[in-house]
Amino acid sequence: SNEVKEYENYFGLTLLDRRSDKRTDSEWLSKKQSHPTTVYILFSNLSPLVALGGGIENSQQPQVKLCRLYHKDVEQCMNQTEESTLIFLGVEVQFHMNLLAASHGRVLQEGEEDGLVAWFALSVDSASAEKFKQKHEDCYFLHPPMPALLQLPEKEAGVVAQARSVLAWHNRYRFCPTCGSATKIEEGGYKKTCLKEDCPSLQGVHNTSYPRVDPVVIMQVIHPDGNHCLLGRQKRFPPGMFTCLAGFVEPGETIEDAVRREVEEEAGVKVGHVQYVSCQPWPMPSSLMIGCLAVAVSTEIKVDKSEIEDARWFTREQVVEVLIKGNQRSFFVPPSQAIAHQLIKHWIGMNANL
Amino acid sequence: SNEVKEYENYFGLTLLDRRSDKRTDSEWLSKKQSHPTTVYILFSNLSPLVALGGGIENSQQPQVKLCRLYHKDVEQCMNQTEESTLIFLGVEVQFHMNLLAASHGRVLQEGEEDGLVAWFALSVDSASAEKFKQKHEDCYFLHPPMPALLQLPEKEAGVVAQARSVLAWHNRYRFCPTCGSATKIEEGGYKKTCLKEDCPSLQGVHNTSYPRVDPVVIMQVIHPDGNHCLLGRQKRFPPGMFTCLAGFVEPGETIEDAVRREVEEEAGVKVGHVQYVSCQPWPMPSSLMIGCLAVAVSTEIKVDKSEIEDARWFTREQVVEVLIKGNQRSFFVPPSQAIAHQLIKHWIGMNANL
Ligand SMILES: Nc1ncnc2c1ncn2[C@@H]1O[C@H](COP(=O)(O)O)[C@@H](O)[C@H]1O
Ligand SMILES: Nc1ncnc2c1ncn2[C@@H]1O[C@H](COP(=O)(O)O)[C@@H](O)[C@H]1O
Repeated sequence: SNEVKEYENYFGLTLLDRRSDKRTDSEWLSKKQSHPTTVYILFSNLSPLVALGGGIENSQQPQVKLCRLYHKDVEQCMNQTEESTLIFLGVEVQFHMNLLAASHGRVLQEGEEDGLVAWFALSVDSASAEKFKQKHEDCYFLHPPMPALLQLPEKEAGVVAQARSVLAWHNRYRFCPTCGSATKIEEGGYKKTCLKEDCPSLQGVHNTSYPRVDPVVIMQVIHPDGNHCLLGRQKRFPPGMFTCLAGFVEPGETIEDAVRREVEEEAGVKVGHVQYVSCQPWPMPSSLMIGCLAVAVSTEIKVDKSEIEDARWFTREQVVEVLIKGNQRSFFVPPSQAIAHQLIKHWIGMNANL
Repeated sequence: SNEVKEYENYFGLTLLDRRSDKRTDSEWLSKKQSHPTTVYILFSNLSPLVALGGGIENSQQPQVKLCRLYHKDVEQCMNQTEESTLIFLGVEVQFHMNLLAASHGRVLQEGEEDGLVAWFALSVDSASAEKFKQKHEDCYFLHPPMPALLQLPEKEAGVVAQARSVLAWHNRYRFCPTCGSATKIEEGGYKKTCLKEDCPSLQGVHNTSYPRVDPVVIMQVIHPDGNHCLLGRQKRFPPGMFTCLAGFVEPGETIEDAVRREVEEEAGVKVGHVQYVSCQPWPMPSSLMIGCLAVAVSTEIKVDKSEIEDARWFTREQVVEVLIKGNQRSFFVPPSQAIAHQLIKHWIGMNANL
């Protein structure tokens, strides 16, 4: 039907339905953990286990895919080690089983099982990781994560973003920030509870118990003439790479104000109108990149060397050339999987006059 | 000039320029702390010290304003108590002193001083708070913060959002989440550093050192017919109040996916197209409310009682009546200062057909 088609357009973008309602259903979770269809993805040191994928023709980049393991593959190391962390990621979105009616358990499957294919992320210590690599010769841990993570198919990148962010949270937030005591992991990996009985964090709901998501603004700054854009580079970038300016949203700040503040801080350029375009989770470790177009009202650049190394106005023609032909002698931009690339392309697709 | 006018339209919205570059300038900070023009706003138990304002005519709500104190007012209690926390908030935005050129210290002021009026937030313990109330009879601490904070003028609300978020962070994040040790406050209150010498949080940059900002999606869900919207209520709301659905963005999730997930979780309604509208910092304790319009692709409501108490489709006429006439027998919505109100109004201002 049309309704299902329209629905697929939006929901086909995600591989998993998070089913947060199942996080507190420990019986369901433990049943799914040992279910033969359940998929495990493995992490070591926040890097996912992958294999070389078929690769898309005409694609210049190597394609990698997540290694999907099963209970039988991970059983041993789950029991063995204290150091492993397990995160419930969700269930596979299934389009072809009367989707609109079946979600959230309104229609039960035949037999006793709900037919849902659950996914878990499992983080293992280096010893177990070593064993896995020996057993699965075609697999390796994607390290360093960036820019390697950009080689994953879009849907898998979303799952890795989710898993890596939550694992990074457990990695850095082992102790209760309110009282300094040890904590325990609950609710499929999405909650952390202080083990000290009279800790104030246990009274009421507090963000100390939940994973962090750090909003970051990233902006394509347009020259008042509409025909130039402002791109900058940090010292740690590969030589020749320029990209959109970006920075963390501060407490008590709107997205639009954060854009104006960051552009002025980093490049000394004043911005007026700001327009949201799109966003992208960035699991390094747990950012949400909020992409905007920003229209400058001043043009003189004054680079803050403590933040960036260089910032310049590039002409529309220069940018088009780089987008079409890739790495130019003068400069290049991040690959198409990065939101910066999409923002730059979005601007190029616009009329010359804003 | 036109340029300055245009600039004021955007920058007149904020009272303070955060001047994050000054956070590491401890000499400047300590000079400003004792400067006679410096403004202090006081907090006790995360509530700001306010006084009854003149009040706007025709306004039904009482207007309150921040008490602006000076160094002489707070000097004693700053030295006295271990328990006080000081946050540098920024400097007053000044439009009438050759603004476009003067910012970021490009033009020095006559004499030695930069002429900037700095603002600090000072959190004091209950004993000091009691003394302040006795000395300043017309002042009181705004408690409970909500909905009282909504009575502040918009610009002051922004400053309180900033101050309260950072203070709440210090309040709950006293210990290093990575190792459980004590921490020290740095950079004007915007950084927290672990005191244990070999803590992994000291190697590289980690979000454990910086204040949290929790992105939340809040959405006006439109019926497929374009003439109804979905509003819900939580048990803890005042009787009769309905508002937009909302929920925290999860790790690895886009804003648009978070909107679709939350609406389906809370009300069982499926959403297709999502459009960003505007955002609002919400210092309870440190959220960034990201406001969206969301177009439903299904209509049957199935309320998740663990999250909300009720959710209903309201007609455009019902909503218009409530917005114009306020509290109706049937229901009412949050006041105009809340982003939910603005989202609802935004929809009403739109054409009937999306
Ligand atoms: N950062 C967070 N702070 C507080 N609650 C959170 C956070 N992230 C997720 N949650 C969940 O959201 C619920 C509160 O949502 P609400 O009723 O909208 O305040 C909590 O019970 C948690 O399950
Ligand atoms: N949540 C955060 N995580 C990491 N850095 C932050 C955060 N909030 C603010 N910062 C600041 O942003 C700088 C890193 O920014 P970037 O170079 O964009 O990664 C750090 O040096 C901090 O001063």
